Amino acid sequence: MNALFYEGNHSFNIKTIEKTPLQAGEVRLKMAYVGVCGTDVHIYHGKMDARVKPPQIIGHEVSGVIEAIGEGVNGWAVGDKVTVRPLNPGPEVPADNGQRHIGQHLKFIGIDSAGGMQQFWNVPAFTLHRLPENLSLTLGALIEPLAVACHDVRLGELQAGEHAVVIGGGPIGLLIALVARQKGAKVLVSEVNPHRIAFIQSLGIQTVNPLEQDLVEAVNAFSAGAMADIVFEVSGVQAGVTAMTQIPRVRGRIVMVAIHSEPKAVDLFRFFWREIKLIGARVYEPVDFDEAIALAASGNLPLEKMITQISPLAAAQEVFETIDKNPAGMKYLLELA
Amino acid sequence: MNALFYEGNHSFNIKTIEKTPLQAGEVRLKMAYVGVCGTDVHIYHGKMDARVKPPQIIGHEVSGVIEAIGEGVNGWAVGDKVTVRPLNPGPEVPADNGQRHIGQHLKFIGIDSAGGMQQFWNVPAFTLHRLPENLSLTLGALIEPLAVACHDVRLGELQAGEHAVVIGGGPIGLLIALVARQKGAKVLVSEVNPHRIAFIQSLGIQTVNPLEQDLVEAVNAFSAGAMADIVFEVSGVQAGVTAMTQIPRVRGRIVMVAIHSEPKAVDLFRFFWREIKLIGARVYEPVDFDEAIALAASGNLPLEKMITQISPLAAAQEVFETIDKNPAGMKYLLELA
Repeated sequence: MNALFYEGNHSFNIKTIEKTPLQAGEVRLKMAYVGVCGTDVHIYHGKMDARVKPPQIIGHEVSGVIEAIGEGVNGWAVGDKVTVRPLNPGPEVPADNGQRHIGQHLKFIGIDSAGGMQQFWNVPAFTLHRLPENLSLTLGALIEPLAVACHDVRLGELQAGEHAVVIGGGPIGLLIALVARQKGAKVLVSEVNPHRIAFIQSLGIQTVNPLEQDLVEAVNAFSAGAMADIVFEVSGVQAGVTAMTQIPRVRGRIVMVAIHSEPKAVDLFRFFWREIKLIGARVYEPVDFDEAIALAASGNLPLEKMITQISPLAAAQEVFETIDKNPAGMKYLLELA
Repeated sequence: MNALFYEGNHSFNIKTIEKTPLQAGEVRLKMAYVGVCGTDVHIYHGKMDARVKPPQIIGHEVSGVIEAIGEGVNGWAVGDKVTVRPLNPGPEVPADNGQRHIGQHLKFIGIDSAGGMQQFWNVPAFTLHRLPENLSLTLGALIEPLAVACHDVRLGELQAGEHAVVIGGGPIGLLIALVARQKGAKVLVSEVNPHRIAFIQSLGIQTVNPLEQDLVEAVNAFSAGAMADIVFEVSGVQAGVTAMTQIPRVRGRIVMVAIHSEPKAVDLFRFFWREIKLIGARVYEPVDFDEAIALAASGNLPLEKMITQISPLAAAQEVFETIDKNPAGMKYLLELA
């Protein structure tokens, strides 16, 4: 079978390897599609070489069909259409507070261990979520990022009728916007990339470009003076962090979705002054995958439109290079079959 | 009657003035005691001259007895022993979200208008809280800061049995520690001032000096590895902000009590990584005054011990100078009678 190996320094190689022997508790998936996550691009840029030791197979936004069942696995059958919740919790420590999805010894499958950019992939059966018949395998590869969005919206306790502002309109920001809208929120996305702005608008979602328009005034107008009930910081940049405290109402909530690798200057006075809440949110729990699958299967989200391009695994190197160059890109899938 | 005027530039003057005519909806208090708040010291230092225009009477931690009742005031009688919730909400705006205690047009009585450091003080009747018979007028002057602590603990949703860490052991930090302990939490106070450490320990509360001991290790030991369920940031300094994200458990809460007048470097990654919450908390609501009064009247808090010194109004200038010099000081009261 073919597998894509990250070799370090912006390079991938396709190699033909043997299928990995199946362990007890695992299933082997015949992979269908793997989405390219921002984290995969980060890995490609060599930013995570301390954690991802080349050569390594990456990829964690997947769909596939069960090809073989390991010893001790119940409830699954060959031919089942599935996606994978790529979290492998390690031994629990007291400070984990029982939150297995972000425990101290968590291993992220596809980063800390081999990922899905290979034709056959062995994963623990406990990571599986069933895809319904009416959900395509292409959309199946979007369940993982959609589950992130469901988790962010759930932890933010978004309510129908609320004014939600999403700072950063990349794939995760857009999925958050779509989930929030589906739950009855009024949604405004703050984004600076004109290609993304045009695309987001084409989905019927309001946008603001904070380089061209005062964001506070825009949120004020959007909410008729009520300001944001909930803000999602998905930009990962200082400008987003500066904006996030300026736009919530009194006792508004900010959900911290972005990965800020360096400390940022935060207006803590504003948290005090307006009794604002900041809520950290990371990955997902099983319930978020269940919700993402139900939402995708409902057909109510324009997920197909988010797929910029589907390419064969053989073109992976070119796909990563294209992602870096194409400001209009949203979600790229690799086809494994 | 005598009144103390802040005259700018570290100076106060006592002046003999007429009693202010009573307006409809007001009561006149014969003042008993006024506590000196950190904010009053800040005013004395000239840091708030843009907001507090000298000459002005300040002071908002008060106790007194009703001397006269204005037109239209019901439910109060001459001789009633009271304290004042010094918040005068202005017209409500949509972004206030109905939170009158921190609305955009809120006036803080004693900062934005004349305060209680005068022998007779007129206040709106809606600011009054009755002091029970068994609560002394000296402790009555501690209700306002105690209500701040009750508000912080309530918004932090502190539960019995939780591990609470208070960063900063000044008067508010100590009151938070006392309220948290009274509610069944295990409490550790992080403080660098050896006088305060000794005093806090004398009240049976555990302390850690982060200049002498690694705070993360200390919290780890204090909580048997579970880390802090809840952290109160009361220090107002960068070291406190840096520490606050290091010590919570997964999904722990941080209550932002301190006034950070400048943006601080915050480890937002940690909020994401451990799904930590930050909760801004400012002043109080009526329920917090009710709780503070009940707690003080219960006799279960060592509030008397927090009173460093009681001085006549005539000595006010000296009191403010002493506060700046005495690292062992906690709460100074002025006696108005």
